Amino acid sequence: MVMNKVGRDIPKEYADQFGIYEGELAHISDYQEASRVIKPVKPRDEKLVGSIREAIEKTGLQDGMTISFHHHFREGDFVMNMVLDEIAKMGIKNISIAPSSIANVHEPLIDHIKNGVVTNITSSGLRDKVGAAISAGIMENPVVIRSHGGRARAIAAGDVHIDVAFLGAPSSDAYGNANGTKGKATCGSLGYAMIDAKYADQVVIITDTLVPYPNTPISIPQTDVDYVVVVDAIGDPAGIAKGATRFTKNPKELIIAEYASKVITNSPYYKEGFSFQTGTGGAALAVTRFMREQMLKDNIKARFALGGITNAMVELLQEGLVEKIIDVQDFDHPSAVSLGENANHYEIDANMYASPFSKGAVINQLDTAILSALEVDTDFNVNVITGSDGVIRGASGGHSDTSMACKMSLVISPLVRGRIPTFVEHVNTVVTPGNSVDVVVTEIGVAINPLRQDLIEHFKNIDIPQFTIKELQEKAYGIVGTPDAIQYGDKVVAVIEYRDGSLIDVVRNV
Amino acid sequence: MVMNKVGRDIPKEYADQFGIYEGELAHISDYQEASRVIKPVKPRDEKLVGSIREAIEKTGLQDGMTISFHHHFREGDFVMNMVLDEIAKMGIKNISIAPSSIANVHEPLIDHIKNGVVTNITSSGLRDKVGAAISAGIMENPVVIRSHGGRARAIAAGDVHIDVAFLGAPSSDAYGNANGTKGKATCGSLGYAMIDAKYADQVVIITDTLVPYPNTPISIPQTDVDYVVVVDAIGDPAGIAKGATRFTKNPKELIIAEYASKVITNSPYYKEGFSFQTGTGGAALAVTRFMREQMLKDNIKARFALGGITNAMVELLQEGLVEKIIDVQDFDHPSAVSLGENANHYEIDANMYASPFSKGAVINQLDTAILSALEVDTDFNVNVITGSDGVIRGASGGHSDTSMACKMSLVISPLVRGRIPTFVEHVNTVVTPGNSVDVVVTEIGVAINPLRQDLIEHFKNIDIPQFTIKELQEKAYGIVGTPDAIQYGDKVVAVIEYRDGSLIDVVRNV
Repeated sequence: MVMNKVGRDIPKEYADQFGIYEGELAHISDYQEASRVIKPVKPRDEKLVGSIREAIEKTGLQDGMTISFHHHFREGDFVMNMVLDEIAKMGIKNISIAPSSIANVHEPLIDHIKNGVVTNITSSGLRDKVGAAISAGIMENPVVIRSHGGRARAIAAGDVHIDVAFLGAPSSDAYGNANGTKGKATCGSLGYAMIDAKYADQVVIITDTLVPYPNTPISIPQTDVDYVVVVDAIGDPAGIAKGATRFTKNPKELIIAEYASKVITNSPYYKEGFSFQTGTGGAALAVTRFMREQMLKDNIKARFALGGITNAMVELLQEGLVEKIIDVQDFDHPSAVSLGENANHYEIDANMYASPFSKGAVINQLDTAILSALEVDTDFNVNVITGSDGVIRGASGGHSDTSMACKMSLVISPLVRGRIPTFVEHVNTVVTPGNSVDVVVTEIGVAINPLRQDLIEHFKNIDIPQFTIKELQEKAYGIVGTPDAIQYGDKVVAVIEYRDGSLIDVVRNV
Repeated sequence: MVMNKVGRDIPKEYADQFGIYEGELAHISDYQEASRVIKPVKPRDEKLVGSIREAIEKTGLQDGMTISFHHHFREGDFVMNMVLDEIAKMGIKNISIAPSSIANVHEPLIDHIKNGVVTNITSSGLRDKVGAAISAGIMENPVVIRSHGGRARAIAAGDVHIDVAFLGAPSSDAYGNANGTKGKATCGSLGYAMIDAKYADQVVIITDTLVPYPNTPISIPQTDVDYVVVVDAIGDPAGIAKGATRFTKNPKELIIAEYASKVITNSPYYKEGFSFQTGTGGAALAVTRFMREQMLKDNIKARFALGGITNAMVELLQEGLVEKIIDVQDFDHPSAVSLGENANHYEIDANMYASPFSKGAVINQLDTAILSALEVDTDFNVNVITGSDGVIRGASGGHSDTSMACKMSLVISPLVRGRIPTFVEHVNTVVTPGNSVDVVVTEIGVAINPLRQDLIEHFKNIDIPQFTIKELQEKAYGIVGTPDAIQYGDKVVAVIEYRDGSLIDVVRNV
């Protein structure tokens, strides 16, 4: 075991393989960018093939290779299941999959794991049954959890080399120019897929809407694409927006949102031309609404809003309260429409969004961000990956990226959820180190990280109750009692990469 | 000496280094894409530096390195001279320069060559005094002439590795997001520069119009940029459009344009949804005008127009006769404005435009293209680089790329220019092999390449006089006499790469 800088013991085997977390910027240095093997496409060559099977055959996919997918269709994704089913039917085994994330809809993956088709996984997260199966120990090799910026980093640095990327595209022409704003299952930005397209040796575009050449706007260009397959349906539009756009009526969440908005609009960063990311989820959407009111009152406009985009943000753009939206992912249909129609709503890839190894990500220019948490501990460490039972059910997302890079990160969370404390002595799993978290916002008030004495000084007269993080934990325990320790097994079922590729934690079987 | 497939003797030294031309697709194979060394930019790092000198110092530019520039400012470019002057002042020597092209305005380069500051050059072309100086033999090493697609190929394949790209940008924010459609010296598309930005180890954006972050649209993203410098002026808008937009009143050129338009609109490719590239120059612009009339008459619309874009093309877009413009370079101000304002006017990079090593260039999808010539010989070989005196004064441009890849290439040229025959027994320098040329159009009629029996059959009843290419040459000699042979020296002053990187010819000193 080797202890890393957030006090987590990392088994030597994994510490040797990945390195251990030693601080937010400890492992950032010059590197040779990874590159792909390109098969040039000659004049008169065609890319359109008749089926997913034919595409797999043409790529020469073999046992042991790495394939990737994107998660822009979220719970509406048909692509990963279709491709893995075909690979399984073809008898190909020992495949590593590197989707940008995995959703509930990917439950068939469990059988592919059990049958030896899929033997390695890297993902931002795992949900429900897949997460439970992984936590139960069905895989020999641990899943590698990477943040969105960390995934872009891993691909650019060659830690993940994608042999074939299977990328669902709401629209494409027969030469592979693809976007997410036209078609039957529009998902908006293809920001995560764009990375795979650039670095994978071979790229297969899978679409249900073939359009005349040249398809524009071009999110994934023909120069990144080897084959194009047309299928009946790539995704379910309802699933793409599932669960994201609900505006909360929960009084606790509304108070949290109001406090978070107040922190932002009273912060030193709130001024004409500021920038913010609020993300998705009920409380986050409510923050956007409260901020809107204050911005109107103060006649202050934001230069840009970032991140996973929702209709709430699009409305600010349309109202002129936000000058530009910089968009790596959309969570609902109105956002996808806006991306296609509004020149000030601009698509970027995950590398530009959040990679710590890029020549400067957009999050580096971000003033403030709202982030969620499953658990926060008394060192401000945040867990967004495992539940209170130790089972993997969340996703790393852009959490560690954004909280580190922006000027003021807010982690919002109720004190307890049901009979489970959110504020704990030690989080089950560290995804984001406490150093990156500036302000924690709950329904009873806020705690400011002592590392940010400037903020403590700035906010000393703000009209919100203030606590230490220890006090928040004690209050949570006071309500629901001290939680029982989780009984983990000995098997490491997932390793948690910090955004720089080093290990910040591991998850054991339950 | 080794003879290549167009019958040119290539000195063994260069044949060994580059390989020799062996056919249009002989050297196209899978390859590992080149990559750059990236210096990650951390949160709070700034890219804005105070001067070009400071930027050069920060990049650590040293003797022997390779730097690049783009030629989107054409005769209005200030950037290359500014940077080379500063490099010379700093005492740095033995620099290789890899601009996408070199214009008359770069005459100061001659002194930098003489003083040992610049010792290697690769470029699409050389004009006037720089061309004359190179042809006189002032450099020890031959200039490497590459087509636009060939340059993109060379960079992607690692034949050219750019240590530092100095890229003039009409507008940029302080983090390096740059475009060519806003600012004081708008040039429109930054298609050639986008390649350098992606592959160069370090990129310096030089702008005279710094805008608030984030600058959009983003032609060159912050993730490709290391430093940003603001100067008083990067270029002269008048020079950018110089010589390009003249509409011909020359009766010979008008007849050529009328014949070319007739060939296209009577070809098997002329139908709803066809595509074309007409390029610049008086006759090419006139072709566009004649085609417009015919398209209106036939109620036929083009799906896309490609290439160096002029106002003539933009008008077709606005009229709805062309659905989309795919734009790697703009030749006048209205085109730059259109790129900034019209979503159907779409910017692409040189790799996507024309690289034979890409996963499919747009020219592979092109129906027909109009190309110019300084000389055409009886094998249909075309020279666009040396004058009748053997002096370098032209540019390879997209000539060999487009003529090879499109379905029907038209080379338009008057039979003679002054007392100089355009049609000759053997061109001074082969840039485009005869195999790639389908139809030659002159003021007296056309010659169709015997390799295109399908076109000879198709056009047998067209209302244009038809000749063999030999007859055109004999008629030209009949008018102006047999040209005297050029007295070349023994020194190779330039090597001409075919688009695949092999040598199709060399140019000796005069």
